[in-house]
Amino acid sequence: MIFIGERISGSQPRVYKLILEKNREEVQKLARKQAEAGAAYLDLNVGTAWLRPAEMMVWLVKTVQEVVNIPIALDSRRLDVIEAGIRACKNPVLINSTTGEKNKLASFMELAVKHKSAIVALTMDEQGIPPHAVGRVAIAKRIMEFADGYGLPRDRLFIDPVLLPLKFSHSQGPVILEAIRHIAQEKTPPHIIVGLSNVSQGAKGRRLINRTFLTMAMACGLDAVIADVLDPHLMEAATVAEVIVERHPHADQILRGVKK
Amino acid sequence: MIFIGERISGSQPRVYKLILEKNREEVQKLARKQAEAGAAYLDLNVGTAWLRPAEMMVWLVKTVQEVVNIPIALDSRRLDVIEAGIRACKNPVLINSTTGEKNKLASFMELAVKHKSAIVALTMDEQGIPPHAVGRVAIAKRIMEFADGYGLPRDRLFIDPVLLPLKFSHSQGPVILEAIRHIAQEKTPPHIIVGLSNVSQGAKGRRLINRTFLTMAMACGLDAVIADVLDPHLMEAATVAEVIVERHPHADQILRGVKK
Repeated sequence: MIFIGERISGSQPRVYKLILEKNREEVQKLARKQAEAGAAYLDLNVGTAWLRPAEMMVWLVKTVQEVVNIPIALDSRRLDVIEAGIRACKNPVLINSTTGEKNKLASFMELAVKHKSAIVALTMDEQGIPPHAVGRVAIAKRIMEFADGYGLPRDRLFIDPVLLPLKFSHSQGPVILEAIRHIAQEKTPPHIIVGLSNVSQGAKGRRLINRTFLTMAMACGLDAVIADVLDPHLMEAATVAEVIVERHPHADQILRGVKK
Repeated sequence: MIFIGERISGSQPRVYKLILEKNREEVQKLARKQAEAGAAYLDLNVGTAWLRPAEMMVWLVKTVQEVVNIPIALDSRRLDVIEAGIRACKNPVLINSTTGEKNKLASFMELAVKHKSAIVALTMDEQGIPPHAVGRVAIAKRIMEFADGYGLPRDRLFIDPVLLPLKFSHSQGPVILEAIRHIAQEKTPPHIIVGLSNVSQGAKGRRLINRTFLTMAMACGLDAVIADVLDPHLMEAATVAEVIVERHPHADQILRGVKK
């Protein structure tokens, strides 16, 4: 399972404030803690309300790179913010994210290929987010073909079937699970990712909903997630789910109760 | 989700002792607690080491029926024990279980049809338990056709794809999940059931493994389970999983944090 730590996000008021104040120490603490908890990438998001988002992204990248060496997921809808972030990064990045909209996809894909980045692509297009799995899978296929055309290898493509909040979209569960299952059946499947915390937005018992959804999606083929890696119950559930689907290298030790 | 409470089982030394001593009060307490916790059936198992298993099963049925009114799952490999149990039961029962072995299947199926029982059928036959999903699904199909021939409706047939302990059979997870997925795709699917506690046998962290496996199997189409309904974390995970797959009638209240 590829965990992308979600905690350094300007969409959280507390973190927004840290970035606004350029609080190096606290941001670095969040970076270190997430790396220790098992994040494979750290998501960096400056939020939407910035006067100079590219400049803030560069500051975030530099600040985080001082203390951890894991790759960075540059989280923005703006190409210029992503591009500025890439230039400040020591390692190849994960671009988070493009959509299946033609113009956007072309410019983001070019950037990914040029900088040897991986890229997250949401299954939505000019018409929005298809309500059913079949529509999202169709966009996923278009994105995969597009990526192939650009020479982007499938292991650098992360398809995101767009997880909406259960509370506002009750049919979300079956739709997403079916979409994941279909995309995972590709001959050369891409990575399949969701932004996990969305599923429980506005609901009570958020952590229980998050970890339950995560293990169910893993049973269908999900292999990457943007999530709160500092939630120990989430991480232990994911570890056991990996053992169950035979994707954990230390399954034996875990079943014997030896921590890994 | 159909929960079958597993706690009144002579395979547990503590319960074995209760049955041996005909401890009415303690057995009835186990029955009441499981009914309150949400069991749809109570599994009754006298264990294997009995001199007079049919007599003991009748005692168990009568004892349990004095305090709860939910249907009973008669858990035995012996036809005479099941038959004695059925005669003592006020309500239709769930026969737990037959296999796909020809002779066994015929006699158990006749009994089920005669007494309007539901029946659990394991996907194993004269050759044993097939190692891969395809073999288990093939036996499931034979069992379904056989049941059709006897006029047993699909909603009284519970196919059990035989969940083995992860610790001794690492590939168990993907095999079972795939088998469940295939059986669930039948045009008129039967119920699909597993004996959940098997999955964690001999492993550390059994409850975490049990509830993680359960939610993953539910994502693939499992709709019944023999399990420890007195484990509150198991039950809350299953409730959320039901909300996610849109099979919970009170999804709204649950997401709003109103207990149901």
